[in-house]
Amino acid sequence: MDKFMQAAIEEAKLGLAEGGIPIGSVLVHKGKIIGRGHNKRVQTGSPTLHGEMDALENAGRQSASVYRESVIYTTLSPCSMCTGAILLYGIPKVVIGENESFMGEEQLLKSRGVEIDMVDSDECKQLMRDFMAEKPELWNEDIGE
Amino acid sequence: MDKFMQAAIEEAKLGLAEGGIPIGSVLVHKGKIIGRGHNKRVQTGSPTLHGEMDALENAGRQSASVYRESVIYTTLSPCSMCTGAILLYGIPKVVIGENESFMGEEQLLKSRGVEIDMVDSDECKQLMRDFMAEKPELWNEDIGE
Repeated sequence: MDKFMQAAIEEAKLGLAEGGIPIGSVLVHKGKIIGRGHNKRVQTGSPTLHGEMDALENAGRQSASVYRESVIYTTLSPCSMCTGAILLYGIPKVVIGENESFMGEEQLLKSRGVEIDMVDSDECKQLMRDFMAEKPELWNEDIGE
Repeated sequence: MDKFMQAAIEEAKLGLAEGGIPIGSVLVHKGKIIGRGHNKRVQTGSPTLHGEMDALENAGRQSASVYRESVIYTTLSPCSMCTGAILLYGIPKVVIGENESFMGEEQLLKSRGVEIDMVDSDECKQLMRDFMAEKPELWNEDIGE
């Protein structure tokens, strides 16, 4: 497993250990993690800090040139909000753990020229499968359903 | 002027007074403001708290049914990220102060069935015009350019 996807999975597990939704993400610039994070809905009561958003938030303010040389890794296919953030900042590539538990806006990303690398990770799937079975209402809340 | 757009403009002015980017937003549910906010890039170093995101964040965790009966007001046409958040939560209507300073993802919103009400406010335009002239680099950073 790619070390950056492994770091995103570590973030997902950290979120789970905190009682949260197990989705993690890292933002990588030129081979270095500049931001890492995980879904914070439970931990901070945030409706905006999905895994990818938390990674972007923790990377802090960056210039457009940094985002345009970066790759974002996420354990789960990015929802509309996270997709929009990726498009806003012109991040050219997204590495996705899996999209079986939830299919995000991959078509929109592709239509705007963003490269998608699908890892299809069993570990990511298992994390979501267990979580969705245990806390279906929390999961629905997180995706606005 | 609609009282809710007026509240969004108050938020934008509050952000400006704090040295920030003058964009404000309110989330309104059944005629009551349940979240209000403004761009926090300067104030908290946040790349994710645009005006709309801050309003959603400050509204806290809400059920899907609340979002689907809500209207979001924003002083400026929503960027990709804020558009994605509106789509994620199924907010059916966006009232926009202006889109002359910046044209966001209005076409995407419309294509997904979101109603757009364009106020075309001179006050909103003036706020952005003055800010963009004074701090063009900060503005470019905020839109990933």
